[in-house]
Amino acid sequence: MEIDLNLIGMDKGKQYETIITTVNSENVQNAAPIGVLCSGSDTILCRIFKGGKTLENILSQREFTVNITHDPELFTLSTIGNLSKDHFSRDNSIKGVDAYFKCEVISVKEAVKQSDPIRKKDEANVIKSKVTDIVINKEVQAFNRAFGCVIETLANFTRFDLVGETKKQYYLTRFRECSRVVNKVGGKEEKQAMGEIKKELLKKGYEI
Amino acid sequence: MEIDLNLIGMDKGKQYETIITTVNSENVQNAAPIGVLCSGSDTILCRIFKGGKTLENILSQREFTVNITHDPELFTLSTIGNLSKDHFSRDNSIKGVDAYFKCEVISVKEAVKQSDPIRKKDEANVIKSKVTDIVINKEVQAFNRAFGCVIETLANFTRFDLVGETKKQYYLTRFRECSRVVNKVGGKEEKQAMGEIKKELLKKGYEI
Repeated sequence: MEIDLNLIGMDKGKQYETIITTVNSENVQNAAPIGVLCSGSDTILCRIFKGGKTLENILSQREFTVNITHDPELFTLSTIGNLSKDHFSRDNSIKGVDAYFKCEVISVKEAVKQSDPIRKKDEANVIKSKVTDIVINKEVQAFNRAFGCVIETLANFTRFDLVGETKKQYYLTRFRECSRVVNKVGGKEEKQAMGEIKKELLKKGYEI
Repeated sequence: MEIDLNLIGMDKGKQYETIITTVNSENVQNAAPIGVLCSGSDTILCRIFKGGKTLENILSQREFTVNITHDPELFTLSTIGNLSKDHFSRDNSIKGVDAYFKCEVISVKEAVKQSDPIRKKDEANVIKSKVTDIVINKEVQAFNRAFGCVIETLANFTRFDLVGETKKQYYLTRFRECSRVVNKVGGKEEKQAMGEIKKELLKKGYEI
């Protein structure tokens, strides 16, 4: 199949929520939810925190699999560490996902930018990789968090004038957090939308 | 075209984010973002707050249009009230949306359940409607907030043990809010995922 990330709804410059599966030198499989930045039609970047099996396995094997799914169960199990052996296919993808692609590492760098508000930048590596194969089981658009953040922000926006001071402060905190996420993972449409909502909030006299 | 909401990714029992367009008796068009519950292959329910043009127009005209789009700009403009005349087609849909469907009102009831944490139940009507026509310009899945809520909750979950007490309380508030949204709009998969995350948080000793 043609190798083009656009086939699974990934656009250059936007980050998508995926589950990365890896193996160690003894072929023990591991899964973890990781944000993947599409940097071209067949290249991706991902920032992976040190201390976990995903980074360890990628550094030792120089290859990994990116699984695309909208199954909340698979994301939950791979986050809390309960994805069992039975969930993995022999080719190290996760059974039943809509699509997956295979990657080979091009380069590994120390993270130089802070992208996470909690963890330190020196705790991560940025992995640049080339997509070597794409398998599509079902037509799918990889999930990008930005549109949902805009919708959540708009839902709060309609309630700003109905709530008390504590809740207003909470909504402002939420606005800042959604802005951060949209700036990190979104496209220009979502960034522009957040800018317009900000203007409206400023007009209403809120400090952002 | 066959009338089946499943054609635009709407499943029975789940609620989707849409923009509803209406006209008044003088044919003045209006747009507002409204959550639409799919109650069957050709029926929907929507809870619409009193005091706005959408409810007024639906009650007087007994028909309306539901627009399906992932364009953050259209959602933003229709929320802050800046959608201009040029955005509307002559058939009262919004230009450029992926799909839209026409509805006729079957029944109007006073809301009997509280579904919004801020507004009172007696400030809303629940409108049951029949879908009379579907127009699909581009293949699209109507947007449901639940999957995004699960992903946001998982992102916070991975940071719970890295943050101080204030941020932990914020994450717990976020967890409760996402649970509320998922219970209201989501399917059984998303509800189950939130249940599993809750179990893990309880195991860690957090009070939810």
